[in-house]
Amino acid sequence: MRAYRHSVLLSLLMASTTLILSNTLLAAADPLPSWNEGPTKQAITAFVNRTTNQSSPDFIPQEHRIATFDNDGTLWPSHPMYTQLAFAIERIKAMAPQHPEWKTKQPFKAVLENDMDTLASSGEEGVAQLVMASHAGMSTAEFEAIVTEWFKTAQHPHFKKRYTQLAYQPMIELLKYLRHNGFKTYIVSGGGIEFMRPMTQAVYGIPPEQVIGSSIEIKYELQQGKPVLMRQAKIDFISDKAGKPVAINRFIGKRPVVAIGNSDGDRQMLEWTDAGSKSSLKMLVLHDDAKREYAYGPAEGLPDTKVGAFSESLYKTAKKRNWIVISMKRDWKRIFSFDSAEQLGTQNTGAKTFSTNE
Amino acid sequence: MRAYRHSVLLSLLMASTTLILSNTLLAAADPLPSWNEGPTKQAITAFVNRTTNQSSPDFIPQEHRIATFDNDGTLWPSHPMYTQLAFAIERIKAMAPQHPEWKTKQPFKAVLENDMDTLASSGEEGVAQLVMASHAGMSTAEFEAIVTEWFKTAQHPHFKKRYTQLAYQPMIELLKYLRHNGFKTYIVSGGGIEFMRPMTQAVYGIPPEQVIGSSIEIKYELQQGKPVLMRQAKIDFISDKAGKPVAINRFIGKRPVVAIGNSDGDRQMLEWTDAGSKSSLKMLVLHDDAKREYAYGPAEGLPDTKVGAFSESLYKTAKKRNWIVISMKRDWKRIFSFDSAEQLGTQNTGAKTFSTNE
Repeated sequence: MRAYRHSVLLSLLMASTTLILSNTLLAAADPLPSWNEGPTKQAITAFVNRTTNQSSPDFIPQEHRIATFDNDGTLWPSHPMYTQLAFAIERIKAMAPQHPEWKTKQPFKAVLENDMDTLASSGEEGVAQLVMASHAGMSTAEFEAIVTEWFKTAQHPHFKKRYTQLAYQPMIELLKYLRHNGFKTYIVSGGGIEFMRPMTQAVYGIPPEQVIGSSIEIKYELQQGKPVLMRQAKIDFISDKAGKPVAINRFIGKRPVVAIGNSDGDRQMLEWTDAGSKSSLKMLVLHDDAKREYAYGPAEGLPDTKVGAFSESLYKTAKKRNWIVISMKRDWKRIFSFDSAEQLGTQNTGAKTFSTNE
Repeated sequence: MRAYRHSVLLSLLMASTTLILSNTLLAAADPLPSWNEGPTKQAITAFVNRTTNQSSPDFIPQEHRIATFDNDGTLWPSHPMYTQLAFAIERIKAMAPQHPEWKTKQPFKAVLENDMDTLASSGEEGVAQLVMASHAGMSTAEFEAIVTEWFKTAQHPHFKKRYTQLAYQPMIELLKYLRHNGFKTYIVSGGGIEFMRPMTQAVYGIPPEQVIGSSIEIKYELQQGKPVLMRQAKIDFISDKAGKPVAINRFIGKRPVVAIGNSDGDRQMLEWTDAGSKSSLKMLVLHDDAKREYAYGPAEGLPDTKVGAFSESLYKTAKKRNWIVISMKRDWKRIFSFDSAEQLGTQNTGAKTFSTNE
């Protein structure tokens, strides 16, 4: 009995000691190793330190540590086109045998003929037609299965990696660092909510209930007595621009204290965060790294683009209000998880990236 | 140095021992003291035991332990009228001096004259007019302040207690018991999302981001350069009946494994939960206790009512599908937190109920 108790105590002791050691190691390690030293990294750690230190005047109670991240262009690339548009195009091609009429009907004809100029000229309405044809008319369960399957194999045309391998490594570290400090991390994207949810836990460590996005209407039906949620070909809500604060209010009911985006679609989310009474961190990713990723603005004289534009007007607002502009070129030591390995000349198959990272 | 290390080890040991002791005490204590012993209580604890035991075939990983609760009639009374309707009526009366036209305009005239028959005859459209007049045309921050203030003083006409003191004690225990076992507890109510959020943390231990409800449209505006979210006099979404599974899918993106309601408005939420592949717990509160609360159905020959009706058809479905019907009379030892104190003849001021309960 005495021996038993002794061994229980001993194992408790060892567990406690291990805990202390690993906490010490954690504190000593740089939580943001893919960020270069400099004012941006300093601003992040200074913000986290002063808002999580109970004796600081800027202390934020844990239940108010809400951090909202845009997705496309902020957490992963949005060039040469939004990932969801690439998905829609590939789905249209896959579904074409069941739709012979698409051979002569725009914008489907353009997609099937890889005629990107004609597709671009079909504008938002054309894109909406593609999205509805590829995203609606099925149950939420069927759509989830299709998206999950697609993410397993679909590759980015430039990087030749699966999309789920292209999450920006500095952002993955920032998400973890914030969570480690009691912040609840959300995605607030203009992208489709049910297109993102199948991959966010594995790629970003963000569960479905912390993913906010645009949605189409969903209808509850009984099919042969079995309940299904059917996706309707009708827009329900666009979570972009002024829609972002509205969506944040609806889903979270609290104002964020961290808001991070990359384009004019994120302006209102940062404004709304900035207008709160608590200390807050507002950041915008500037894609100024043509070599490692892409370079576009048109802010700062970078090439103009229609996809995820960062306007000069937004740039001026950021400077005026002390929103931090993250320079990918200057602030990020590496961009993708496979960067460093390749720099070291190591073969990187990327096979391990699509797995739970927390 | 040695003495120091010794004392560190000793305090670790003591901390560990305290932890073990308090866990033991916790396991021994009844987590549901306000529930009478019987099949309902047994079904709850059996469900929690088999879904949280890793070696059980019914084990549910923690991220899928989603529990959704209706609010009105499930977590607190919905009689003699929905709390939110009482709020709307009191607001109309408070706002009347600024609206002289209401003296002659229905349904406002009926409200100001306490003419409940005429108000009832104005139907859903009349109620919608009252709700829009009292809930829209202001910012979300202003509305939150009004609701918060109202909950501090407004009293239930029968119980003469503040509404926030009327949360059912057995349900508060059930919410805590589920959370203690790794379930994430949500409210999914037909009531207004922003009417509930100011009180759910304090009353139920449920934070704003886990409250789902009906909503009116919200518009983002800059007023003199300051961002505000303005409440519009237009319905956005009704989270009732078939709207409940739709709202659950939108906000959570996972299917619940616990769903608890009390009326025909909850049928689809329970159906949707029941149709999942995991083991699940479905329960409906039957108000069969005229003495301690209210008695209405019309199920089981209880008085018919238009507020929160539990139909015979729903009752039959429940029996057929083994959904548990909670009898307030038989299953609940006490209904309100102040019940036992009053039974013991203790003066209960209720002053402490409106505070964080977890």
